[in-house]
Amino acid sequence: MSVREIAEKAKRAQPQIAKASTDKKNKILQKIAQELWNRRDEIIQSNLKDIENAKKNGVGSAMIDRLKLDEKRIKGMIKSVEEVASLPDPVGKIVEMNRRPNGLIVGRMRIPLGVIGVIYEARPNVTVDIAALAIKSSNAVVLRGGSEAINSNLVLTKVIKDAISSEGISPEIIGFIEDTSRERIVEMIKLEDLLELVIPRGGESLIRFVTENSRVPVLKHFKGVCHVFVDEYADLEKAFKICLNAKVQRPSVCNAMETLLVHKNIAESFLPKMSEIYKEQNVELRGCEITRRYVKWAKPATEDDWYAEYLDLILAVRVVENIDEAIEHIKKYGSSHTDAIVTENYTNAMRFINEVDSSSVMVNASTRFSDGYEYGLGAEVGISTTKLHAYGPMGLEGLTALKWVVFGDGHIRT
Amino acid sequence: MSVREIAEKAKRAQPQIAKASTDKKNKILQKIAQELWNRRDEIIQSNLKDIENAKKNGVGSAMIDRLKLDEKRIKGMIKSVEEVASLPDPVGKIVEMNRRPNGLIVGRMRIPLGVIGVIYEARPNVTVDIAALAIKSSNAVVLRGGSEAINSNLVLTKVIKDAISSEGISPEIIGFIEDTSRERIVEMIKLEDLLELVIPRGGESLIRFVTENSRVPVLKHFKGVCHVFVDEYADLEKAFKICLNAKVQRPSVCNAMETLLVHKNIAESFLPKMSEIYKEQNVELRGCEITRRYVKWAKPATEDDWYAEYLDLILAVRVVENIDEAIEHIKKYGSSHTDAIVTENYTNAMRFINEVDSSSVMVNASTRFSDGYEYGLGAEVGISTTKLHAYGPMGLEGLTALKWVVFGDGHIRT
Repeated sequence: MSVREIAEKAKRAQPQIAKASTDKKNKILQKIAQELWNRRDEIIQSNLKDIENAKKNGVGSAMIDRLKLDEKRIKGMIKSVEEVASLPDPVGKIVEMNRRPNGLIVGRMRIPLGVIGVIYEARPNVTVDIAALAIKSSNAVVLRGGSEAINSNLVLTKVIKDAISSEGISPEIIGFIEDTSRERIVEMIKLEDLLELVIPRGGESLIRFVTENSRVPVLKHFKGVCHVFVDEYADLEKAFKICLNAKVQRPSVCNAMETLLVHKNIAESFLPKMSEIYKEQNVELRGCEITRRYVKWAKPATEDDWYAEYLDLILAVRVVENIDEAIEHIKKYGSSHTDAIVTENYTNAMRFINEVDSSSVMVNASTRFSDGYEYGLGAEVGISTTKLHAYGPMGLEGLTALKWVVFGDGHIRT
Repeated sequence: MSVREIAEKAKRAQPQIAKASTDKKNKILQKIAQELWNRRDEIIQSNLKDIENAKKNGVGSAMIDRLKLDEKRIKGMIKSVEEVASLPDPVGKIVEMNRRPNGLIVGRMRIPLGVIGVIYEARPNVTVDIAALAIKSSNAVVLRGGSEAINSNLVLTKVIKDAISSEGISPEIIGFIEDTSRERIVEMIKLEDLLELVIPRGGESLIRFVTENSRVPVLKHFKGVCHVFVDEYADLEKAFKICLNAKVQRPSVCNAMETLLVHKNIAESFLPKMSEIYKEQNVELRGCEITRRYVKWAKPATEDDWYAEYLDLILAVRVVENIDEAIEHIKKYGSSHTDAIVTENYTNAMRFINEVDSSSVMVNASTRFSDGYEYGLGAEVGISTTKLHAYGPMGLEGLTALKWVVFGDGHIRT
C-alpha cells in the first residue's frame, strides 16, 4: 500500500474515533494494556529478531539498548498506556464561552487535528505511546518507525489494531508504513491534503530534512542546549544539587544541561567545589578563561562548545559579568529548550522568567524537569522548540485545535 | 535594504517592545491614532497618487475602491487602532499555574512570537491594523504591501514609526519592504532563522504560492465556501432572515454564504418563498434537480458550483435527504471556514456543532458573524482555515505563544 493510501484510509476512518465516547476510547486503551501483557512472548520474540539483525549490521550498543524490549520495558509501555487512559479527554471540552452584546453565545471547543504523521527511530515503545495519545485525542496517525525496530513495530501495531477493532472502530486509524525506506518519508511529507501535522522524532538531520521538504506543517524539536545560570545571589547548596542533577542524572537526553553559566561574583566560592563534584562523576569540563583560573584541569572551551549538545558527560562552563550577559548568552547560543536560574534574589528570578523566551524557563529547579510527565501532561508526543501551535512538552492538548461554536436565536448582522 | 536586513533589524529591536509596559504600548497606539488624523492631508495626497497610477494602469473599480483612503476611512483606521489599545495585553498573562506533587509550581505564560511576516494586497488600512496588533502583542513585523498602495503605505508606515520612536522604542520593529516585486516575497519566505510565521492575506494563488515555497510556517486562509443548512425543524422566519443576511448583506467577503442546503421535508414550504426573496435582491440561484422543481428560474448547478466561492450575488442550492447528507456535503465541498444550521431541534443542533469541524460552527445565526470583531477579539490578523496554532478568526492571542514557567526551591529529579 502506498503512503497516500494508508493516509487516505486513516482520514476516512478518523471520524469514527472522533465520535467515540471517552469510555470507549479508554476501553480500547485498557485492552491494549492488557494485550501487551498477554502477548508479551510474541512481542519479545519479534524484538529478538530485530536485535539479531541489528547485531549483524554492526549497530552500536547504545542503539541496541534503545531497541530492546523485555518484560520490564513492556510493563513500562503498559503503565504509559494506562496513564493516558486516566487523563481527562481533551475532545469536546469548551474552553471559554461568552455572551456577546447582541446576545450571541460564542465559545471555543477542542477538536482533534485529524491525521498526524509521525516519523521516529529505533525505540519501539514510541509506537505504543503515540498510538495511545492519538486514540485518546481522537486523531488518526500514520506511523513510520525505524527499520531497526520493524519486527517489533509490526507486532505492536497488530496488538493496537486488534484492540481498536474489538471495540468496533476501524483499525485503519492507526496507519503503519511497513516499508522503511527514506522515499516513504518523502511521500508522507507531501500529503498536505491528508495530514494536518508531521512530527519527526529523531536526530537533527532527520528534522532538518523534514522541515526543508515538507508541505505539511512540522512540529520541530531541534535540540536541547540547556543552560543553568548560577546567579551571584544563588544559595550554594541548591546550586550544587541542581547543577549536578541537570548534568549527570541522565546526560543523554535533551533536557540535560549542556552549558553552565556562573556569575563572576560567586565563581570563587562556587566553581572549585562544583568542579570537584563533577570530577567525581567523570564529567569533562570545557571552560572559558576565567573558569580555568578556578578549575585548572578544565579544557579550554572553543566557540563551538557554546553551541554544543553533547548528550554526554561533558559540560561547557562560562563565567559571566552579570545577569544581562547570562541572558544574552542564552539567547545567542541556546536552542529555546529549557533554561534555569539559581538565585535567591526576587528581581533576578523575575527578570530571568520574563526575559528568557525558551519553551521552559525555571527558577531553582533542575532542567531535567522539562518533560510532559513531570508537567502533568501524561505522556508527550514531543518537545517543540518553535513557538507555533505548541511550545515545550506537547501532550494531548497539542494534538487538538480549538474551533469556534456560536449559538444564536435567528441572529443576523446589520 | 534586503528583506533579510529588514528582518534582522526587526528581530534585534523586538526585545524592546517585548519589555515595554502595557501603558507604553497603549501610548504608542494612541499617538498613532492622533497622528493619523493630524497628518490626514498628507495621507490622502499620497493615496491620490496611488489611485492615479492605478487608473493609468487600467485597474478595475472594485480594486480602486479597496485602495481609496478618505477622511471617513481614516476615521475607521483610527477606531481600529483605538480598539486594539483598549484590549487587554496578552503578553505576560499566565493562563494556568499548578502545584505538582513534588511541590514544583508549573505554569504557562503568554509571550510574543517574535518577528512575523505579512504579505497583503491593495488595502492600505491593513498596514495600520497589523502594526497595531503587532505593537500590542509585542511582536515585530516585516510588511510587504501591494504595489498599488505603495505611496499610501509609505506615509502610513512613517506615521507608525514616528509614534514608536516618540516613545523611545526602535521603529525597526515595523519593517516595511519598499520594493514590491515578487522576488522580495520569495526572499521573505526563506527567512526561517528570523521569522516565526508568515501570513499571506490575498487571493488563493498568492496563498498557494507562499505555502508551497515557504520554509517559515504559514497561516493559511484559503477561502470561504460557507454553508447554511436549513433543517426540517427550522423556524422558517429565522431561516428566511438568516439565509438572506448570509448571502446578501456583503457578498464579497469570505464569511458570506455560498451554498444553501435544504432538508427535503421543508423544501416545499421554504424554497418557493426564499427564492422570491433572493429574486428581489437579484441573487442568481444555481440549484440541484430537486431545487429546480420548486424554483423554475434557478439555473442548473454543476459539480463545480458546490466548490465555488462566488464572492458575488450567486448562490448554489441543494436539497438533501437528511442532516447526515448535509454534513457529508459540507465535509466534502466546504473550506473549513464557517457553516451554520437553522433548526429548532436540540439533537440536530448538537450533532451539527459536534460533527462539523469547520473553524466556526453556528446554530441559528448568520455566517456573517464569523469575524474577530464580532467574536470580541478586536481586530483580526486573518482567519485561519487550517487547524494548527490558530483556527478561525485570529486576534492578539494568535500572535502569542505559551512558554512554561517553573518555580522550584532547589528541586532535582530522581
